[in-house]
Amino acid sequence: MKHGWAAAAQSGRAASQQGMRRQNLALVMTTVAAHGPMSRAAVAERTGLTRAAVSSLVDELHSAGLLTESGSVPSGRAGRPGRALALSERGPAGLGLEVGVGHLGACVVDLRGEVRVWLRVAAANRNRRAEEVLAELTAVSERAVGEARASGLRPVAAVLAVPGLVGDAPGTVERAPNLGWRDVAASELCAHGLPLEVDNEANLGALAELWQGAGACDFIHVSAAEGIGAALVVGGRVFRGARGFAGELGHVPVRPDGPVCACGARGCLEQYAGEEAVLRQAGLGRGEDAVRRLASRARDGDRRALGALERAGEALGTTLAGAVNLVDPAAVVLGGAYAELGDWLLPGMRRELATRTLRRWPPEALLVSALGRRGPLTGAGMAAIRRIIEDPAVWRPTD
Amino acid sequence: MKHGWAAAAQSGRAASQQGMRRQNLALVMTTVAAHGPMSRAAVAERTGLTRAAVSSLVDELHSAGLLTESGSVPSGRAGRPGRALALSERGPAGLGLEVGVGHLGACVVDLRGEVRVWLRVAAANRNRRAEEVLAELTAVSERAVGEARASGLRPVAAVLAVPGLVGDAPGTVERAPNLGWRDVAASELCAHGLPLEVDNEANLGALAELWQGAGACDFIHVSAAEGIGAALVVGGRVFRGARGFAGELGHVPVRPDGPVCACGARGCLEQYAGEEAVLRQAGLGRGEDAVRRLASRARDGDRRALGALERAGEALGTTLAGAVNLVDPAAVVLGGAYAELGDWLLPGMRRELATRTLRRWPPEALLVSALGRRGPLTGAGMAAIRRIIEDPAVWRPTD
Repeated sequence: MKHGWAAAAQSGRAASQQGMRRQNLALVMTTVAAHGPMSRAAVAERTGLTRAAVSSLVDELHSAGLLTESGSVPSGRAGRPGRALALSERGPAGLGLEVGVGHLGACVVDLRGEVRVWLRVAAANRNRRAEEVLAELTAVSERAVGEARASGLRPVAAVLAVPGLVGDAPGTVERAPNLGWRDVAASELCAHGLPLEVDNEANLGALAELWQGAGACDFIHVSAAEGIGAALVVGGRVFRGARGFAGELGHVPVRPDGPVCACGARGCLEQYAGEEAVLRQAGLGRGEDAVRRLASRARDGDRRALGALERAGEALGTTLAGAVNLVDPAAVVLGGAYAELGDWLLPGMRRELATRTLRRWPPEALLVSALGRRGPLTGAGMAAIRRIIEDPAVWRPTD
Repeated sequence: MKHGWAAAAQSGRAASQQGMRRQNLALVMTTVAAHGPMSRAAVAERTGLTRAAVSSLVDELHSAGLLTESGSVPSGRAGRPGRALALSERGPAGLGLEVGVGHLGACVVDLRGEVRVWLRVAAANRNRRAEEVLAELTAVSERAVGEARASGLRPVAAVLAVPGLVGDAPGTVERAPNLGWRDVAASELCAHGLPLEVDNEANLGALAELWQGAGACDFIHVSAAEGIGAALVVGGRVFRGARGFAGELGHVPVRPDGPVCACGARGCLEQYAGEEAVLRQAGLGRGEDAVRRLASRARDGDRRALGALERAGEALGTTLAGAVNLVDPAAVVLGGAYAELGDWLLPGMRRELATRTLRRWPPEALLVSALGRRGPLTGAGMAAIRRIIEDPAVWRPTD
């Protein structure tokens, strides 16, 4: 009998001296990112590396412009204070890009995770030619890069957020129904000269939440607006599924014989809590800023709006309770445009989660994202710098 | 701003010479497990290790009784054939144990994954004292170990399958409702002198399927009988969730206002497809071998039995379609006792999956386990040997 472990063994690589150095460079960078500013001694203590090894690694990262060393931190012992290692606020940076249904965006994030440039322009992208959309995005990105350079930043990697399914072919959007895209080679069409990765906006919104949020490493991030998407963050990573299509919360059935959905099935969550369904129930039309108009109605005590939001919250809660029983996250985060509707969605969601989850679900485990609509673009910029921090050897000027 | 990457950085360990050797021993073992029998040269080629390194590692594994080297395999080049490395069929072995509601089980599995000893005894364990159950299990395990020794096997690690939730405390069953257990320190009470791990039976059934099955690395394994459990296998590992409670498929809502479930919520899957609900609808009483009686009625064309199974299949399909949209597995496997009901459950499941999954769900992606009820105990034995194969340095006689 063969053991069915071929996949695990194939991915196994022999440990080598060169691989060790690369791994240890990454270890120092991620340690300073998580715990810095800190002394060389503190890095050695946390990582288990010798002081000499840390010094050699830090020197390399310093000369690549990735770490700075200045000021002082208490060494925790008697004697003079050590100098403080920190991620550089100049030099290598990440470029985040976004194609939305109604806008284009570009941002530049420095290694410390701070957003230094933020551009967002209105654009009617629904059913517009992808080439045109991405040419305009390239122009926006060039403006952002120009502004970043003026502050001493040098974007070296880019990530693009799209409201669609990103398939197996790298850089390609397999399907984005709200844009009218099918098999668009986005990374080729967006020609700003940096290596570009493409990811789903819900995934990037969730990563932004992970990196800037309350600190949970395992959560479901619900990102609702035109459609309802979700991302499962597991151990600090987006869980993508066997073919990269995990997170389609909007098409989990709420009532097996409910109304017919655009996907062809009946009773999907989108038919109860999707923007179109909620606006219809609230007696509002679609269009730009529909969510803001809905929130304003609810704030004014409009009964139809309140009723529509309560039913939507209940349906979201029922579906998320099932998801919690299935994947056991530590928290659920309501993000995207729906973060602005939290006051009215949360009560129904909390009730359903409390009743239906097998393990006790504390009310504080349901959170509203502080990033909201800014999530996907922020996440794209941060994902770009994460590439650098997790494998700094790739970004040395000599490479 | 601190990056929220503390967890990742904390788990980072400095790469060391000793760690490298340990990692490379594991690499050789997992390579031979997945691709053997094979020559030393083939191991070197697959792993990227030098011939000299492979020789030194193989010598160590050989003298620990973990690898054998005999016979010959074609070297793929001109000249004499190489000798064949294979996992040993004698020496270190795994002990699998199981506490069921109506039985106890013990098995011994050799390093090649073959079940060499299999014992299963009837036992009325529902609401019986845990101490008593585990003392009887110890006796059964001693018989199994005795038989294994007579064949030249030496069990060195054990894994116990229980129909319950295994929490954070290692070796402890937090809750097993069908046994009446709560916070039972199973690994202390089962005193056969080997290191013992405890895991949920659905997880172990899924691992058995992974290791002996068709080869998918990402699937949902549904393990139904008294309750309905599931295990998510992701990249060849059981996905456990933030607190170890993932896979509670039986309490995903099918109809939000359906019948009240034992868990307190309404309309859970167990109310439509759990053994008790299906037997009631089929007009059958509970008791030993209820699933076999149900299958026999269905085979005889009994209308109530067929109707009950069709409705159960539909409910399973609806719920699994939602799960597929959420976690995107490559396959769904029907295991446990319900594997015997596949002929009648599958049509409804297939129909629902085809209608409700967002990506095309090919009929062949829904499978019936060949192991069925034997899954959890087989999985326990194989999990024990997997501990050895994945970290052979721990099991050297010198340690």
